[in-house]
Amino acid sequence: LIHVNILLFPEFETLDAFGPVEVLGHFPGCQLRYVSMQGSPVKSWQGFEVLTESVKGADLSGVLLVPGGQGTRPLVEEPEFIEALKEIAERSEYCLTVCTGSAMLAKTGLLNGRKATSNKIAFEWVRSVNTEVQWVNRARWVVDGKYYTSSGVSAGIDMTLGFLADQFGADTARKIAEGIEYIWNSDPEEDRFAK
Amino acid sequence: LIHVNILLFPEFETLDAFGPVEVLGHFPGCQLRYVSMQGSPVKSWQGFEVLTESVKGADLSGVLLVPGGQGTRPLVEEPEFIEALKEIAERSEYCLTVCTGSAMLAKTGLLNGRKATSNKIAFEWVRSVNTEVQWVNRARWVVDGKYYTSSGVSAGIDMTLGFLADQFGADTARKIAEGIEYIWNSDPEEDRFAK
Repeated sequence: LIHVNILLFPEFETLDAFGPVEVLGHFPGCQLRYVSMQGSPVKSWQGFEVLTESVKGADLSGVLLVPGGQGTRPLVEEPEFIEALKEIAERSEYCLTVCTGSAMLAKTGLLNGRKATSNKIAFEWVRSVNTEVQWVNRARWVVDGKYYTSSGVSAGIDMTLGFLADQFGADTARKIAEGIEYIWNSDPEEDRFAK
Repeated sequence: LIHVNILLFPEFETLDAFGPVEVLGHFPGCQLRYVSMQGSPVKSWQGFEVLTESVKGADLSGVLLVPGGQGTRPLVEEPEFIEALKEIAERSEYCLTVCTGSAMLAKTGLLNGRKATSNKIAFEWVRSVNTEVQWVNRARWVVDGKYYTSSGVSAGIDMTLGFLADQFGADTARKIAEGIEYIWNSDPEEDRFAK
């Protein structure tokens, strides 16, 4: 059994969160929890609201998934949010970010000296958030220790399949991809969106 | 400006709805509404709840998006739901279904004599729901009149890009795919998941 906490915040990018959720939901024995700092309904950038549980009191063991999106821009400037994120990420067994979710994680300092990637359109902004991270431009996703960071939006699906492959074998990932009729880009170094 | 109503129901498949939502949300001037028959929070098969507006009283003009998922199995047997779906689909300017969403649409009779497709794993069940539909096994998505039907889950993303390409040109679709770092399978007839 693996527990995954999906951290939602205002203006998160829909597919950053729900691409990985789709994949993880098809892994038997994966328990998904939808959490936010306040525990109220959270509105995505695409305008729908999702009910969430507050991180306070939630069981935060297991895997943490951090999406990106427009909402990350103001949040990297909110020390209280970043401090809380740091605490949750430190407690997680694995921490996966999608798109500009890695900018928020970088702001915590936890990626210092580590390799990481992000959305290619927002890459310069993400780099500027913390230059002590070894930002990798050409990568669909990057693994460094317990941290998985992916490129933009759809890359989160590929990374999540990669994560399951690392944990449970490539066959597990391939079967899930087949089940959801997804053409898995299984090579983390192949990145046609790199500039 | 295009209005899109996303029809949610208990146990809908996450990516069936939110893959297309991701794509549509990046089209400037696209207004998304999240509706359900009851207007209460709706829980996806992957366990999160989304706030919705009731179809009663909602402006149902424009495009209707119908996801699939486990929830379609009981719903094809609920005449009241199917009758309401028929009414909404008839009023729509375009009606897009993903995965087994086409089984529910087929049950309304609106696809009779038309070409349509669905998830390849559930194909025999979908066919059995209404044999008067010209079910196409090998297709990423199928267009017949105002009806767009796609194969399983991820195919909904390809179909939605295809829909935008038909309406606003292939460049529009390509730019959105690039922005979300999605490798668009732009040929509706290429279907590696067909049996």
